[in-house]
Amino acid sequence: MIVNNLKPPYYAVIFTTVVSENLEDYEKTAQKMEVLASQQKGFLGIDSARNDIGITVSYWRTLEDITAWKNNTEHTLARNLGREKWYRTYQLRICKVEREYGFLK
Amino acid sequence: MIVNNLKPPYYAVIFTTVVSENLEDYEKTAQKMEVLASQQKGFLGIDSARNDIGITVSYWRTLEDITAWKNNTEHTLARNLGREKWYRTYQLRICKVEREYGFLK
Repeated sequence: MIVNNLKPPYYAVIFTTVVSENLEDYEKTAQKMEVLASQQKGFLGIDSARNDIGITVSYWRTLEDITAWKNNTEHTLARNLGREKWYRTYQLRICKVEREYGFLK
Repeated sequence: MIVNNLKPPYYAVIFTTVVSENLEDYEKTAQKMEVLASQQKGFLGIDSARNDIGITVSYWRTLEDITAWKNNTEHTLARNLGREKWYRTYQLRICKVEREYGFLK
C-alpha cells in the first residue's frame, strides 16, 4: 500500500535514481536502509517504485529529522557505496508538502 | 534519464498510485496526459516509475501553473476515468522543492 495518513505540513525527500550494472549488495543495503530509516526520529513513511528509473519518496516531520538521518553513520557508509558502485546518476530533492489529496475506492 | 536541471525553489506534484485490474486505455491515456502536461505553462519536467505501486513526480514553476493544469479539460476527463476505472487508491501531494543535490558519474 501507499503512505496516506499524513497531515501537511511535513517534508518529503524525493530520491530519483538510475542504477549502474554493478548491483552487488544493492537490494540488501536498500532494504536495510529502509528499515533503519523507519526507526529514526521524525520518520513518517516511505514509498518506492522502480522500472527504468527508481523513485523513492520518504516522509519526515521536520528538516532537522532529515538532516539527522543524512548524518547517520550507517546511512553515510551506504551513500558512499551508492556513489562508488550502484548509481550512475541520482537527484535528491527536499520538499515541504503543503497540500494533499487522497482517493480510495 | 531523470530530471536534473532545475533550480529551487519550484514545485513538485507527487502522485502515488495503486491500479485496479481494469487497465483498459490506461497506458494510452497516461502517455497522452504526459505529453499534454509537457505543453502547459510552467511545466519543468516529469519522472515516473512503476512496479507494485506507481510514483509519478511532475515539476512546475508555480502553484498557479499546477492549478491551471488541474483545471485543464482533457486532464479533468482523464482524472475522472482514473477514479472510475484505473485506480484503487492514490495520493497526490503538492510540495515546494526547497533544496536539491545531484550526482552524476
